[in-house]
Amino acid sequence: MNQRDPHLPLPTEARVPQLTDVQGMVDRRNIAINRVGIKALRQPIRVLAGSGEVVHTVATFDMAVRLAADAKGTHMSRFLEIIEGTAQALSIATVGNMLATMVDRLEAREGRIEIQFPYFIEKRAPVSGVRSLLDVAVVVTGEICNAASTVTLTVTVPVTSLCPSSKEISAYGAHNQRSHIGIAVRTAAAATLTIEDIVRVAEAQASAELYAILKRADEKFVTERAYDNPKFVEDLVRDVAAALNADARVAWYRVDAENFESIHNHSAYAVIERDKACVSFS
Amino acid sequence: MNQRDPHLPLPTEARVPQLTDVQGMVDRRNIAINRVGIKALRQPIRVLAGSGEVVHTVATFDMAVRLAADAKGTHMSRFLEIIEGTAQALSIATVGNMLATMVDRLEAREGRIEIQFPYFIEKRAPVSGVRSLLDVAVVVTGEICNAASTVTLTVTVPVTSLCPSSKEISAYGAHNQRSHIGIAVRTAAAATLTIEDIVRVAEAQASAELYAILKRADEKFVTERAYDNPKFVEDLVRDVAAALNADARVAWYRVDAENFESIHNHSAYAVIERDKACVSFS
Amino acid sequence: MNQRDPHLPLPTEARVPQLTDVQGMVDRRNIAINRVGIKALRQPIRVLAGSGEVVHTVATFDMAVRLAADAKGTHMSRFLEIIEGTAQALSIATVGNMLATMVDRLEAREGRIEIQFPYFIEKRAPVSGVRSLLDVAVVVTGEICNAASTVTLTVTVPVTSLCPSSKEISAYGAHNQRSHIGIAVRTAAAATLTIEDIVRVAEAQASAELYAILKRADEKFVTERAYDNPKFVEDLVRDVAAALNADARVAWYRVDAENFESIHNHSAYAVIERDKACVSFS
Amino acid sequence: MNQRDPHLPLPTEARVPQLTDVQGMVDRRNIAINRVGIKALRQPIRVLAGSGEVVHTVATFDMAVRLAADAKGTHMSRFLEIIEGTAQALSIATVGNMLATMVDRLEAREGRIEIQFPYFIEKRAPVSGVRSLLDVAVVVTGEICNAASTVTLTVTVPVTSLCPSSKEISAYGAHNQRSHIGIAVRTAAAATLTIEDIVRVAEAQASAELYAILKRADEKFVTERAYDNPKFVEDLVRDVAAALNADARVAWYRVDAENFESIHNHSAYAVIERDKACVSFS
Repeated sequence: MNQRDPHLPLPTEARVPQLTDVQGMVDRRNIAINRVGIKALRQPIRVLAGSGEVVHTVATFDMAVRLAADAKGTHMSRFLEIIEGTAQALSIATVGNMLATMVDRLEAREGRIEIQFPYFIEKRAPVSGVRSLLDVAVVVTGEICNAASTVTLTVTVPVTSLCPSSKEISAYGAHNQRSHIGIAVRTAAAATLTIEDIVRVAEAQASAELYAILKRADEKFVTERAYDNPKFVEDLVRDVAAALNADARVAWYRVDAENFESIHNHSAYAVIERDKACVSFS
Repeated sequence: MNQRDPHLPLPTEARVPQLTDVQGMVDRRNIAINRVGIKALRQPIRVLAGSGEVVHTVATFDMAVRLAADAKGTHMSRFLEIIEGTAQALSIATVGNMLATMVDRLEAREGRIEIQFPYFIEKRAPVSGVRSLLDVAVVVTGEICNAASTVTLTVTVPVTSLCPSSKEISAYGAHNQRSHIGIAVRTAAAATLTIEDIVRVAEAQASAELYAILKRADEKFVTERAYDNPKFVEDLVRDVAAALNADARVAWYRVDAENFESIHNHSAYAVIERDKACVSFS
Repeated sequence: MNQRDPHLPLPTEARVPQLTDVQGMVDRRNIAINRVGIKALRQPIRVLAGSGEVVHTVATFDMAVRLAADAKGTHMSRFLEIIEGTAQALSIATVGNMLATMVDRLEAREGRIEIQFPYFIEKRAPVSGVRSLLDVAVVVTGEICNAASTVTLTVTVPVTSLCPSSKEISAYGAHNQRSHIGIAVRTAAAATLTIEDIVRVAEAQASAELYAILKRADEKFVTERAYDNPKFVEDLVRDVAAALNADARVAWYRVDAENFESIHNHSAYAVIERDKACVSFS
Repeated sequence: MNQRDPHLPLPTEARVPQLTDVQGMVDRRNIAINRVGIKALRQPIRVLAGSGEVVHTVATFDMAVRLAADAKGTHMSRFLEIIEGTAQALSIATVGNMLATMVDRLEAREGRIEIQFPYFIEKRAPVSGVRSLLDVAVVVTGEICNAASTVTLTVTVPVTSLCPSSKEISAYGAHNQRSHIGIAVRTAAAATLTIEDIVRVAEAQASAELYAILKRADEKFVTERAYDNPKFVEDLVRDVAAALNADARVAWYRVDAENFESIHNHSAYAVIERDKACVSFS
C-alpha cells in the first residue's frame, strides 16, 4: 500500500496506535548541542528580485537550532514544515521571519538558516546591446544568537581578471582568466542591498564583465577593456573593499576573489573582512 | 564604459569597423569535428509537467554540432540565441524543435543537445498524508545523426534499498541505505512517458520510497515496508527492466542503480540496457 | 621552443633583461589584506602514520598570508617553493614548521595553511578477520595570528547510524544509513593525537563501523551490532563529545555528524564545539 | 566487541553457523544484467611511470561483470579481493591481468574495470628551469566483451588556450583561459603509449603549457608564447587529432577540449573520435 492507491481510505494519525516519541525524551548526558537540524534539502523557491519582480529558482536549505542539554532530540519534520509554510517570495525580510518562526517552533534560543541558490542577472552586451542572462551564486544566511538576529547576503560573481605583471613584462598579450568575486554583506539598520547591487559592485571592480552572448564587436570591447584594466587578485579584493567602505549601507563585509589562473593549474586567492563597528589597527 | 551607463548612445554593430570573421574562414587540415559547441551554460527554464502545468527550474545546457572538414570554426553565439529564442516550456517535443533549429542555423548535418535540471515531485506521506516535494534529477538528450532524430529522457530517483542477504542471515535488523535508480527511455512513435511516469516505475520497484516529511506513523510504515521488501542492487534493475519490458510505450531503455551502502564506504552498482528492436540472445 | 628541446642552452634569469617587479611596488589604497595566496594546488605527499610508518597520498593545498596595507602584491611562487622544499613526511610538527617558514619568507605577521588528503586505515573484518582499507578524509590546518600558532587536525570518518525512533516504533527493522562523523581537535601542549586515534573515537561511538570487505558472518555481525546500538545524529555528536571531554590530550574540539538519511533525500546534521579553556554556561 | 579488542579470540567463519548464500540462489526473472559490481571504491595505488619508476597515488575503482539471467546476485567481496590481491604497480598490462582474473573469479563472460587517479608530471619552467609538478587526471578502462579485451588510457591535461578571433579583432590583448584537453587512446598490438607521451601530445598543441612555479622571465615567456600561438577549441582537437593520426602506435582515439572561457560563464567544447580500422567518409 502506498500513497498512490486511490481506492484505500487515507489512514490518519488518530487511527494509528500511539507511537513513542523517542526524540521528546529527557537526555542525561548533560551536553547541549550547538546546532542540530537538516542539511542539503532541495526545494524550488521564489525570490524577490531587485526590480520588485518575483523570480523562480531552486534552493538548497540547511536549518538548525541549539538543543538544550536535557532534550534527547530535535523535531526534524518541523524544519520542513517551516519551509512548506513560507508563502512569500524569499527576501532578507522573509529569512528574518523564517528564523523567528524556527526558533519559536523548535523551542530554541539559537538557530541558523542557510539558503543557497543560483540567480540570474539580465545583461546587455556592451556594444551590440544583445540581451542575455548571467548566473551568479547566492547564499542567504540568517542566525539568531544571544537574542540578536543577523542576516548575511553573499553573492559570488564570475568576472574576468587580467594580470598586471604579465601585461607589464610581456612584449604583447597578458594572461587573463575567469575569476570569482564573492561579496558577503550585512547592512546597517534600515538599509538594504539587493543581489543586483552587489553584482554591480563586483563587476565594476573586475578587469572585465562576463556575458553569455557576445557579438564580434562586443568581444573586441571586452578584450580591450580587460587589457586596459589589469588587476591582481589583491586589486580585486582591495577595490571592492574600497567601494564597500564608501557605502554607508554596509555595516560588515567579507570579500574574496579566486582567479582560476590560465598559466597555472591552481588558483590565486585573497580575502578581506571588515566590521565597520570595530576600529582596526592594521 | 559599460552597459549600465544610460547616458551614452548604444553603439551598433553597423558603426563598428568591419571585424574579421575568423571562425568563418576555410580550414585546410581536412579533419571534420564530431561535435563542437557550448557546455555548462546555466539558464532558468520552464518545464511542462505531467499534469499539464508549467513549472520552473534551473537547467544546465550542453549543445554541439558536427563541423565540416573545411570550416574553421562554429558560431558559438548562435547556440545561446537558440536557447534565448525558445519561448515554449520544455518538453520532449520542444527539445525536438530546438534540435531541428540548431542543425539548421548552424548549417550542420548532426547535432546534440543535453539539458539537465532538478525536478520536483509532489508526494503525500503514506499514513499521515502530509504533502512534501521530492527532488529528482532529469536529463533530456536530443541527437540528430544520419538524418534521424532521437530524444532520450533520463530520470534519477532516490529511493531506499534493504539488503536481502543482511535480512536473511541476521537475527534482527537488516542494513538499508539511500539508492539512486536511473531510468533512461526512448519511446515508440506517438507514445509519451512523463517524468512522473518514470518516477512511479522506479519507486514501485524500490524497497521503499523517500519523502521530505514523515510523521512517526509514516516512519513506522516506511521502515516496515522496506523490511518486507528487500532488494539487492541486481533486483532493483531487474524489476525495473521487467516493468519497462511490459510497457509498450518504451522502445529502448537503460536502467541503473547505485546503492550508497550503509556498511561500506563504496557503492554497489548494476545496469541493464535493452533496445526492443533488437533480438537478444543472452 | 619549449622546455623539452634539449639542443638549446637553458636561459637563466641572469641573461634575461631586468623585468619589472609589479607585485613588489608600493600600494596607496591603504587597505591591508587578511589573507592572500594560492588555493587548490594538488601535490603528492608523504604522511607520518600513527604506526611511525611513512605513507603516500595526494593532497590539496591552500596557503595564504596577511599582506600589509602598503604592499602591492604577495609573491605567489614562494608558496610553491615552500611545498617543494619540505623534505619531511607531513605531521602536526611539519605543518608548524611550514607555517613558520611561510610567514618568514613572505615577510608576514599572519598566515594560514590548509592541507586536505584522503588517508587509509587498515581494518580487520569483525568476524572473519579479513583485512581491508577504509578511506577517511583528513584536513590539517595551521594558522599564525597574533604571534600564536595553532594546528587543527580534522578527520571525517564514514560510519553506520541506525535510527532509535525507527527501531522503537516499528514492529521490525529500523532505517539505517551511511553517516560522516567529523572530528576537529587541537591538543594540549605536548600532547598528540594521531589520525588513527581520532578514527577510533568516531567508530567507537557509531552504531557500527564500515569495512571495504565483509564476509557473510561479518555482515551478520555489523547488521546486528547496528540494531543493538541505535543512535540519532544528536547521539553521535554527544557521545563523541563525551569521549573528547574525558580525554586530557584534547584542548579544543568540534564534532559534527551528517546522516545521509535512507528515508529522506536530505541529511540530518548536528555539531558541538568546545574550547576547554572557556567555562561554558549552557 | 569489535576488531580492536585484543583479548578476545578472533572468531573464524568455521565457528559461525552456516549462513544462507542468498546471492548464490537461482533467479527466475530470466533477465541478464549487463554489468553489476562495485563503484566509487577509493584505494592507494602504485603506478608504473613512463620512466620505469613506481609512483604513488590514490585511485577510485569501478568494477563490474555481466550476470547471467539465472543467477540471483554477484559476489561483491570478490571484486575487493582482486584489488587487494594485485601486487604489481598499475600499468596497461596489469589492468589486462586484473580484467582476466575478474571475469574468471566472478564466472562471467564480460566485465569492465575503470580506475581513475591524479598523476603528477615533473616539469621545468621554460626560462628559469625551476622544477615543479603538474597534476593531470588519468582514467584506465579495461573491458572484456565478446571474448575480446580492450584497454583504454585517458589523460586530461590542463593547458592555456588563447582565442584567435579575440586576437585578430582587438587592437591589443586577447582573451585566454585554462582549458582541459582529454585524450583517450587504444594502441595497436605491441605498441605502448605512456601517460607522459599523451601529456606531451596535448601540451605541444596548446597555446601554452601550465606550470606550478613560474618566475617572472617564465611568465613573460608563456604569455608571449600563448599570444603567438592562438587556438580555438576546434584547433585544439584538430591539431591533437592530426598528431594522433600520424602516430602509428595509436589504433583508436578520442580527443576533446573544454575551454573555461574567460569572457563567458560557460565553456566552449569540441570532440573528435576516430577508429583507424574504419574507413571514414566525412
